[in-house]
Amino acid sequence: MPEPKPAAGQVLVRTLACGICGSDLHARKHAHRMVEMARHLPGRKPMDLGRDVVFGHEFCCEVLDYGPGTERKLKAGTRVCSLPALLTPEGPKSIGYSNDYIGGYAERMLLSEPLLLEVPNGLAAEHAALTEPLAVGVHAVAKANISGDEVPLVIGCGPVGLAVIGALKLKGLHPIIAADYSPARRALAQKLGADIIVDPARTQPYATWAEHAAMSEEAKAARPPLQAWLPALRPALIFECVGIPGLIQQVFEGAPRDARIVVVGVCMETDRSEPMLGIMKELNVQYVLGYTPDEFAYSLRLIGEGEVDAAALVTATVGVDGVAGAFADLANPEAHTKIIVEPWR
Amino acid sequence: MPEPKPAAGQVLVRTLACGICGSDLHARKHAHRMVEMARHLPGRKPMDLGRDVVFGHEFCCEVLDYGPGTERKLKAGTRVCSLPALLTPEGPKSIGYSNDYIGGYAERMLLSEPLLLEVPNGLAAEHAALTEPLAVGVHAVAKANISGDEVPLVIGCGPVGLAVIGALKLKGLHPIIAADYSPARRALAQKLGADIIVDPARTQPYATWAEHAAMSEEAKAARPPLQAWLPALRPALIFECVGIPGLIQQVFEGAPRDARIVVVGVCMETDRSEPMLGIMKELNVQYVLGYTPDEFAYSLRLIGEGEVDAAALVTATVGVDGVAGAFADLANPEAHTKIIVEPWR
Repeated sequence: MPEPKPAAGQVLVRTLACGICGSDLHARKHAHRMVEMARHLPGRKPMDLGRDVVFGHEFCCEVLDYGPGTERKLKAGTRVCSLPALLTPEGPKSIGYSNDYIGGYAERMLLSEPLLLEVPNGLAAEHAALTEPLAVGVHAVAKANISGDEVPLVIGCGPVGLAVIGALKLKGLHPIIAADYSPARRALAQKLGADIIVDPARTQPYATWAEHAAMSEEAKAARPPLQAWLPALRPALIFECVGIPGLIQQVFEGAPRDARIVVVGVCMETDRSEPMLGIMKELNVQYVLGYTPDEFAYSLRLIGEGEVDAAALVTATVGVDGVAGAFADLANPEAHTKIIVEPWR
Repeated sequence: MPEPKPAAGQVLVRTLACGICGSDLHARKHAHRMVEMARHLPGRKPMDLGRDVVFGHEFCCEVLDYGPGTERKLKAGTRVCSLPALLTPEGPKSIGYSNDYIGGYAERMLLSEPLLLEVPNGLAAEHAALTEPLAVGVHAVAKANISGDEVPLVIGCGPVGLAVIGALKLKGLHPIIAADYSPARRALAQKLGADIIVDPARTQPYATWAEHAAMSEEAKAARPPLQAWLPALRPALIFECVGIPGLIQQVFEGAPRDARIVVVGVCMETDRSEPMLGIMKELNVQYVLGYTPDEFAYSLRLIGEGEVDAAALVTATVGVDGVAGAFADLANPEAHTKIIVEPWR
């Protein structure tokens, strides 16, 4: 590809590290669905799948050069993160799922100067690159409107579920219950802050949740008479972090009454569910995506200050030649969690 | 059927008026689905469809006699409403979808003394019977956690949508936008408090919503830079009051970003939707059912004080012999909205 040239307000950077995201794996198979869905959103230009797309939206880079009209506060060589968007006169454009804006699997890319965040001194590039997936968890937890009494249940402990667990731990919610079929992922869940881990092949996660969600005797006594016969459980806050068809229906079946469900897993296929279950249980479903600039900056600080053990997620690094193999390897949750692309290798 | 005999804490009543609910129409076709779904709820005994069920859960009655252990504060002849539940040592049991507890289509039924509400003087029984459907709307609006800036859109102006409109009007939200294919239902929507009515056959309800939901210049200027390119719209609060498969997907397609959707329509069949749309727009879906005892009592007061024009909903009254015909007639929204059964006729 030709070397990108920074336009007004832009910065040319060298990619030091870029995570492979579950969405990248999804997109390789279901990019046509992303295009279809983007048509429902005003102002979004869907990808042209007949043209090249360079993936990569979880990156840490090094400043190389500036375009015109820039302040140049960070000198060349400074390591930076940025949320994966380029500011243009037509609004922000996403980096990594675009024909026009190269993602972080490439050696060079363009960023917008106002979005640059300096990586705190001493933080390894492959850990700084985890800012983006951590921000997804921070955002999901922020959108859950936590009051403090909820008992969270995290379904799926891939990078998204692990980020959610890390963010929940910071909120001081306990116990955090997390479920995954993979022993390696369950071990990571514990490392990130889960108090109780469940293997759904052996134990029903919702039963385990209920065992650990008993209401205090005080709260139990304060319930109105018509509710007194209901199971005396604290509010359920369920994070769906898998993103495959059927999962939401499974959560609907397992969830207790009045549960709040945060859908963080990105299911790109049409899904089927029973609205009647949602109705009879008065469930609330909050779909979430992305993060705010503040949540992104906060996530980088969390990693820099060691508040979240992001390093635990990285299971391998590969060069550009290793990307195809890494996509295959990521199918095995026992072997890998987050593989980092180092395009300079 | 044998005359019911009031047990401890129970009251024998004569049904004066009982509304035919959309759920009754649904249940006649899809009762097996209600049974299936009830299996997912602990403590709920599904109906045995091989045995008789007497429908009717929107009733106004007259006190006839009391069972043992009752306080008997309301003398015989007093007109009462009650939420459709019977308190039993095993918890409340629903009236109207049960083999054991007769609903309000019957001449006599049993109620629980602590749930009785005296009908305010002078209120006609057929209007007091609308307490239950109005409470559904009051509850749906309460579950929407209104902050005050939302612009509501009500999809479907059957009795449920009309109750939602009445409850929204009391909250002071403006403009209230309501959509229905039926001219008669749109006229009723206006009567109940809708400011703008939409015929979806001619105009896209979401386009009409957007025309009337412009953000103030002040709010527009206060938006963070990364949001400044988004359409400058006030928060959307959409009430799905239809309850047929495909409706939620339609709302997902039409809804603006960050919309909150309250699902009040009871879709008893399996439904298909695109989680990706929910995710990309960060939608929130609150499924609701029923009401609290306080919301029920408040709804009776609203009708009694003329705060909601419940009388406008009643389009016919029938005796027991007329129920089958009424079920058929209710298929035509031009002809009927709420038909009241008067089993004493």
